[in-house]
Amino acid sequence: MAVITVIGLGSMGLGMALSLRRAGHRVIGCDLREDAAKPLLAEGGEAGPAREAAAQSDIVVSVVLNAAQTEAVLFGPDGCAAAIKPGGAILSCATVPPEVARRLAAKAEALGLHYLDAPISGGAAKAGQGKLSIMAAGTEAAFDAAHPALDAMAETVHDLGRAAGAGSAMKAVNQLLAGVHIAAMGEALAFAKSQGLDLERTVEVISVSAGSSWMFENRAPHVVAADYAPRSAVTIWPKDLGIVSAIADDAGLPVPLTRAALGQFDAAVAAGWGAEDDAAVTRVYARAAGLRLPGDD
Amino acid sequence: MAVITVIGLGSMGLGMALSLRRAGHRVIGCDLREDAAKPLLAEGGEAGPAREAAAQSDIVVSVVLNAAQTEAVLFGPDGCAAAIKPGGAILSCATVPPEVARRLAAKAEALGLHYLDAPISGGAAKAGQGKLSIMAAGTEAAFDAAHPALDAMAETVHDLGRAAGAGSAMKAVNQLLAGVHIAAMGEALAFAKSQGLDLERTVEVISVSAGSSWMFENRAPHVVAADYAPRSAVTIWPKDLGIVSAIADDAGLPVPLTRAALGQFDAAVAAGWGAEDDAAVTRVYARAAGLRLPGDD
Repeated sequence: MAVITVIGLGSMGLGMALSLRRAGHRVIGCDLREDAAKPLLAEGGEAGPAREAAAQSDIVVSVVLNAAQTEAVLFGPDGCAAAIKPGGAILSCATVPPEVARRLAAKAEALGLHYLDAPISGGAAKAGQGKLSIMAAGTEAAFDAAHPALDAMAETVHDLGRAAGAGSAMKAVNQLLAGVHIAAMGEALAFAKSQGLDLERTVEVISVSAGSSWMFENRAPHVVAADYAPRSAVTIWPKDLGIVSAIADDAGLPVPLTRAALGQFDAAVAAGWGAEDDAAVTRVYARAAGLRLPGDD
Repeated sequence: MAVITVIGLGSMGLGMALSLRRAGHRVIGCDLREDAAKPLLAEGGEAGPAREAAAQSDIVVSVVLNAAQTEAVLFGPDGCAAAIKPGGAILSCATVPPEVARRLAAKAEALGLHYLDAPISGGAAKAGQGKLSIMAAGTEAAFDAAHPALDAMAETVHDLGRAAGAGSAMKAVNQLLAGVHIAAMGEALAFAKSQGLDLERTVEVISVSAGSSWMFENRAPHVVAADYAPRSAVTIWPKDLGIVSAIADDAGLPVPLTRAALGQFDAAVAAGWGAEDDAAVTRVYARAAGLRLPGDD
């Protein structure tokens, strides 16, 4: 039984907080939105300001949007890291550049804290079931200190070594591929439509062919069903592919497919579809070629 | 027991001819290279000029490189279609634009022949085991006439309707995705290397994550093993993605990911790696960023 603070109760963070609670931990949820903690309170969790929560906690799980928010909630003027008892652990779960993870780890260690670079994957449903994949890197002591939280939140913990940064690097590799594959799904379905193929049949055939991908099988059915209720929103991708692109630039590595996919997601945001399911990138293609997708009048 | 001519004894065509032979059919293999039919002869098959072979055959399977070769072997000055007995069937297996498939079907039907638009997928190993996937479209009579050959060559026949062209269109959709996914695999592995990640571990983690694809799981291990012996050569992709790109242009559909991937495969050919396994596209990235891949001295 640990005391665990969860900062950021979006769909992922809330699911993680609930999984921690259901595993029997004392869980304090922190979010700027008043109502965000309600489902957690209903299951015996608590809510409160991050600094006060962190001061009572063994583990602080940060599940905010990006690197800037992560840095602010941990080490900003109202940051909570300084309130955590020495020997406590920080799990940083947002997708951030590896160099940011290394910098935050050094700051945490200077305060006598453990830091686990621990980006998450799997979506909100798996977060609520305690079945996330976590790409984790940190010292052995950080893994040990984070153990109760990892056990409750994850089905799979990929141990990527003793140095923070490797978790974020692997997450970036995954996001590069996932983002490119979603845009490729949109490109392929629009292409199929332009050739008069039935989209439902196309999804059936491609899903059992060499052209398939995890993202194709997951997202293409959304297009067939004209269902753009956001499981994962378009706006994730300008952010995550932007991170990939910036890291690659620093490394002198051209990433033309990442850039092409980024351009398509940017176009989807510009068209007003940012809050829709990321399968809506297919519409960017359809609009350009004057094609009608399922659900178009 | 049918008499079946197979034109084009490359790695796919030879495997298909052997599968047809092993199913008990009389099989005549045709190839411009003298030695190409040897393995077929060793299993009781025959060899000969395409016109003479076609004149004796119930079914002619064309497995040549592209649209121009398909048109030449069937309807060129020495083409064999005119020699096939009325009621005979042509299976056209090369990847060609849908409009070419429609045109060739019309020519075949004008001669009283059945034409099945029947692109293949699965690679040489599956061709030799009679376990290909075939994306087929044609009249019901064409399917009936092609039946003995389909049964012997394919594990899965996707019936894409009664009009030639749909098989080729679906194959193009598959190739769009497959080509983009191979280039994305190379982009992702080079990115991982630039961030200091171990490539073998990267392949393990990504293969069970949302960034995975059929092509990632199949090709990334080639890079880890530095094994570029060609199961499928780089040169396939400038051809197949060129077809996709041209079809998309005709339809007014921008295909930025296809174009980005095509550029990387073109660069691999220009670097002298055209005959290597298509996973060698990873080297285009590595060279651009000065990264060392497994096998680099």
